[in-house]
This record gives sequence, structure tokens and C-alpha cells, in this order.
Amino acid sequence: MRIIVALGGNALLHRGEPADFATQRGHVEDAVAGLAELASAHEVVITHGNGPQVGLLALQSESYRKVPPYPLDVLGAESEGMVGHLLEVALRNRLPEREIVTVLTETIVDRDDPAFAEPTKPIGPTYSSTEAARLRVERGWTIGRDGDRYRRLVPSPEPRAISELRALRLLVESGALVICAGGGGVPVAVDAAGLLQGVEGVVDKDLTAALLARRLEADMLLMLTDVDAVYLGWGAADEHPLRQVQADQLREMSFAAGSMGPKVEAACRFAESTGKPAAIGALDDAVRIVLGEKGTRVVSARTPVAP
Amino acid sequence: MRIIVALGGNALLHRGEPADFATQRGHVEDAVAGLAELASAHEVVITHGNGPQVGLLALQSESYRKVPPYPLDVLGAESEGMVGHLLEVALRNRLPEREIVTVLTETIVDRDDPAFAEPTKPIGPTYSSTEAARLRVERGWTIGRDGDRYRRLVPSPEPRAISELRALRLLVESGALVICAGGGGVPVAVDAAGLLQGVEGVVDKDLTAALLARRLEADMLLMLTDVDAVYLGWGAADEHPLRQVQADQLREMSFAAGSMGPKVEAACRFAESTGKPAAIGALDDAVRIVLGEKGTRVVSARTPVAP
Repeated sequence: MRIIVALGGNALLHRGEPADFATQRGHVEDAVAGLAELASAHEVVITHGNGPQVGLLALQSESYRKVPPYPLDVLGAESEGMVGHLLEVALRNRLPEREIVTVLTETIVDRDDPAFAEPTKPIGPTYSSTEAARLRVERGWTIGRDGDRYRRLVPSPEPRAISELRALRLLVESGALVICAGGGGVPVAVDAAGLLQGVEGVVDKDLTAALLARRLEADMLLMLTDVDAVYLGWGAADEHPLRQVQADQLREMSFAAGSMGPKVEAACRFAESTGKPAAIGALDDAVRIVLGEKGTRVVSARTPVAP
Repeated sequence: MRIIVALGGNALLHRGEPADFATQRGHVEDAVAGLAELASAHEVVITHGNGPQVGLLALQSESYRKVPPYPLDVLGAESEGMVGHLLEVALRNRLPEREIVTVLTETIVDRDDPAFAEPTKPIGPTYSSTEAARLRVERGWTIGRDGDRYRRLVPSPEPRAISELRALRLLVESGALVICAGGGGVPVAVDAAGLLQGVEGVVDKDLTAALLARRLEADMLLMLTDVDAVYLGWGAADEHPLRQVQADQLREMSFAAGSMGPKVEAACRFAESTGKPAAIGALDDAVRIVLGEKGTRVVSARTPVAP
């Protein structure tokens, strides 16, 4: 099977923890255990989030006072290098015989995407309400609630196309384990003068993974995160995990934006457009999710749901 | 012809200038004019330096006080993302029909390379002698002279192998314009426990380009910088450019380490090991250097030198 795996950025740099190198490398080494097992049995393409990483790079960038902050597209490209390198090294130690390649990936978005007027994607650390109020004024950031804390929000335009698609297909079909589309890909758009430019935003990595999975004719889209399934009634007395669900039914249910929302949307898009399954679950369960023993499987209405 | 082009990191971020995004993007746009012309006529692979960029990232990284500085291998990977993205966007605007792909490249070095005991590669901005003295103490940096100023020096181990070689060949042979081995590739080494690890260093990009050119069976190694040729008697009354020179004769001449030295060494290695020419010259002259009208051409002793 050809499986596109989308790995949460929070799996590599947990919120609330120090964002230092040793911590991140430790999480990467944990993360690749399941990925390596999966990649031994299937044709796997790995994408990853970059919310925490791009947030760290943004803080580093602006804290160096002699230079104005670099734009988010450049920081996104830096995060693809950072995370790609860490994943590559950790995967090579688990799969020394495998060829592993990271491709810098650019995602084309519309310059007039409504997302630019309404930032929704959280990046970087969380802040107290006092810190949030100060940052709004000092830095002109949009800041939104994240649980009982606050977090910077940046525009998250819709992914329209992936520039490196042909190269990615070539590498995957040659047998390489490919890491790509980190952070949803570096967002670029054609400006009013007809020129390609990087844009200030972070594309949702699950939506890009769904687009990539469709374009690469993947057999499954697998989104790995820190919860073991999609839950109905999350936090309520009658909460229960969904084992298998039709995309059209899942769309009728409501999920919090920013966490499970984009995963559900990405799963529905892939299942509906291809008739193939998407799955959501915990990183440690990767192999068992593919076997149908763990996580939530989202299928097209065309696929009969198991009783 | 298949040409491996090594672009100086200083061509994209000049020393002494502010290291902001707009400045760097402007230089990248200038740099790709000649590269695009060259890539229209030949099979081109682009590598680039990252001295100024990795220096900037190091200062950003350490100026964000809550997190200890990230190691140089991670910063090198970030710089491959940053520069790759800027080059890609600028090249796509010049060559809209071309497929352009940036591959994160890891260069294998020996963990006991003597370079780790003796840092020689300058990165980042220049400092006054007072600043240099303070930085030596405060940050434990090795700092060396750079003209009449000072600059941080980091280990520059010898490139032994390129991890992504097979993928790079596949992409080049498929017709893609490939950007790779930025900053000489992210240095990795096998540690005493047999595990691959990133290492604190910056590989010389010209030496990696020479290795890449040999392994990809290139017809020419082309090193583009801010001087128009290799000069004999540089700065003296009788200075004159070398038009064509045999590698064994060039090795007998002496050049300053840190600037022309590694280019001369890379040129000699490529010419001697392949019998094919290497060339050194100015970025703006790229096409004319390949035609033999500009720059310095370094040939093997096996090749008769034109009168």
C-alpha cells in the first residue's frame, strides 16, 4: 500500500516544554519507531506539521534585533530543513538500508484566499492573557484562545497545488522513503504582476497531506497525532471513539477548529474524492491503525461501513 | 553538458550589509539571471554556500534566550531550506516551464576529522578586535582574522559521501533543475556507537560540489564568486588573471585560505580525478565562463593547455 503519513508538529515539540534541540531530537527518535515499522511494510511518504517549530524560528528571528523578522514563508522553509534533517537522521538509524530523501516543498495558494484576512492557524508557544495583550500591541499579532491560554494566529490559506509533485512521484516510485510538504509546504502565490512570491502564512499540513495523497494516488491518508481516535462527546460522560465512519456522516458532527477540525476535513476530502480510506490516531499505534485495529477510519459513502 | 554550479554564500548575503530578507531576496534575484541563462542551455545542478546565512541563524538562535543555541548541523539544514526556497521562487519566475527541485542534502564526514580540533571556516558577520575578544570569552567561540576584522570560525570537515546521491541523479536525469548540497550539505557522522548523528561544523561547499560533480559524472564544475578569475600576484603591481591552468601547476601557486584556497583545491580535485575542466569566475559571467571567454579554467595535466 502507498500511505501518506501526516505527523503532527506537536509530536516533535510538545507545547509547554522547553523548545530546545535535545528535547526535540528525543521526540523525533520516539516518533520514528512507528514510522520505521510502517515504512518496512508499505510505501510511505512522510509529511509533518511545523506549528511549534515555525513559532520558535519566528521568536528567534525577531529576537535578533539588528534584522527585521524574516517572513513566514522563509521560516516555513527553514522548518522543513530542520525537521527533515532530524527525521532523516533518526530514520536512517532505524532503516540503514533504506534510501531516505527530504524534498523542499512549495504549496501554491491563491493570493486572494480569504484566510489572509482572518488568521486561524496557531503557531509558537502559549501565552497568558497579560502576555497576549502586550504582544497584540507590541508586535501587531493576531492572538486567539488556545484552551485556557493564548497563542499567535497566522493565516492558513487553502493548498491549491504542490510545485514538486512530479519529482515526488518519481522518487516514491523509485523506492525512496520521501519526507516532504513539511508544515503543509512553503506557501507561495502568484502576485498581481504575475510573479511567484512567498506569502505570510502557514498552510494546514493535514489539508496539504490530503491533496498530496490524492495527487500521488495513495491507498490511505494516515494522520498521526496525540489522541488515539476521533471521539464523539469528547470530555463528556458518554464520550466514545469512532472506529469507522462515513465521510458524509462525519461532516455532520462538530469538532473544535484548530485541533481535530482540519484532520476531519482532510480525511473527508480524501475519502470522498478517492473512495479510499483516511485514518486518524495516535503516533504509537501507526501500524495497528493501518490494520484497522486502532484509531478512526474515515471511508467514502460509497464504501459499505463494517457492522 | 552537465554542469555543477557552486554559488558563493556571499553572493546572496554580502558581508557588511544588513542581513535582512529584502536585501537577501534582491541578491538572489540578481544571481539567478545568469543561472537561468545557463540552465536554458545546459543540464545544471546548483549548490550554494551558507556562511552568512548560517551565521545569521546562529545569532538568531542564541539571541532567543529561553532556548540554548541549536547545533550547526540543524542551522545548516535550516539554511538549505531558506536559500533553496529563495532560489526556487526566483528561478521559477525566470524559467516558468522548468521543473525546479530542492533536495535537503546530508554530507557524511569522519567523526575524527582533524578539522574538529581546528576550526577554519568563517561564518556570520565580521567583528572589531574588541568585539572578537568579548565573544571569545562570552560564547567560547574560535575567532580568526578576516582582512582587518574578525570572524567566527567553525570546523570544516572533509566531505566523504553524499547521502542523497542516487535521488539526485534520478532527478537530474529526469530533466529537473536541482538545487542541493547547500552549505556543503548538512554534516553527519557515524558516532562511536555506530549511530548517525549531526555534527557541529560547516562543510566547505566547493569541496562538496567537487565531490558531487565527480559522482554525478559532470562535464564541468563551475564555481561562481565575486571575483572574475583566479589572479596571480593579487593586489601587486603585476597581478594578472589566469585564463587556463593545469591543476598540477595551480597547486604549486599559493592562495589565501578561506577565500580562493578551497575553490582552487576543489577545482584541482575535480580536474585531476575526472580529466574534465573546472572553472572559477564571476556570477555575472556564468555563460561566458562556460564558453571559455571569461574566468579561470583549471584542467588536468592530461589535457593539453591552449597556447
